[in-house]
Amino acid sequence: MMMQLKEAITGRRSVRAYEERPVPGELIRELIGMGICAPTASRMQPWAFAVVENREKMREWSDKAKELLLGRMADNPYLRQYKAAMENKEFNIFYNAPCLLLIYGDTASPNHVVDCALAAQNIMLAAYEKGVGSCWVGFATQVCNTPEIKDALGVPGDYRPVAPLILGYPRGQWPPVPRREPVVFSWIK
Amino acid sequence: MMMQLKEAITGRRSVRAYEERPVPGELIRELIGMGICAPTASRMQPWAFAVVENREKMREWSDKAKELLLGRMADNPYLRQYKAAMENKEFNIFYNAPCLLLIYGDTASPNHVVDCALAAQNIMLAAYEKGVGSCWVGFATQVCNTPEIKDALGVPGDYRPVAPLILGYPRGQWPPVPRREPVVFSWIK
Repeated sequence: MMMQLKEAITGRRSVRAYEERPVPGELIRELIGMGICAPTASRMQPWAFAVVENREKMREWSDKAKELLLGRMADNPYLRQYKAAMENKEFNIFYNAPCLLLIYGDTASPNHVVDCALAAQNIMLAAYEKGVGSCWVGFATQVCNTPEIKDALGVPGDYRPVAPLILGYPRGQWPPVPRREPVVFSWIK
Repeated sequence: MMMQLKEAITGRRSVRAYEERPVPGELIRELIGMGICAPTASRMQPWAFAVVENREKMREWSDKAKELLLGRMADNPYLRQYKAAMENKEFNIFYNAPCLLLIYGDTASPNHVVDCALAAQNIMLAAYEKGVGSCWVGFATQVCNTPEIKDALGVPGDYRPVAPLILGYPRGQWPPVPRREPVVFSWIK
């Protein structure tokens, strides 16, 4: 199964409903392999991974994440738009996806955040090529930085979560989300 | 000219020597169009662009960038590995590339840094498909945040430079840079 680059870039969607069936382990490894082809500042390759294929665990972490996010509403106006979702007991920030692929960044690199984001984009594109949907779950960043979850995953203290990516086979159709015309501030010749 | 996704991901290189000929303006616009297909937190699309196709201006900004970076060596151990380059009058952080495509992030989005990085990866892959080399020039971030350059580019105060990308037709061959085996801290089933 191969795909043209342009089709991957324009066709990828953030998917928020998944089939039950798991993503094959071999494919998850292949996606990680695509991720680490991303450019990396000073060749530091500050990315490292953790894979979670346990919906109960993810549900538990989702509940904890919602609790943490609700606690930040007061001093974070941006988060307030999500208050109802965070208070909804049914809402799972991981959308019952069968797989959570976490990219942690090594803080020894001052560029770990962008390097890991570049790797994440490779992974989301490569997943799409294989019929696997993905979504960057920003709601999970904080909870994945707690000592409890880092300990459970064996993540060293000097690593920080950058990209919590859910993966799975999409349920239903995911139409494109419109984009505004790009702003170009200037074009100097 | 089309390319398979996998070939783009694995074949892309950070290119640091360029031919004289410019990148067509139409292609630069197309690359920006690919950039904004990236996922974006809360649909905020916090990216905006500036294009510079003036080698003299870029040379000037490179000199200023080196000066700024030298000034930060004392309290930034990471930068010290680049001291000789920064002191070298000949060194141009933009490698005489014909084009600098800057992605600025709107700080109104708490996720502007990663969103712009995701867009940058799309752009670097799409450039490679078209035979255009690219390099994320981290050295340029600070200088592109100075009031002088932001004013010259018409960048509002609440935007911050995230991805300074040089673009151009590669001079010479760019072999792959080896990657370490990816670290997977854990795989929970």
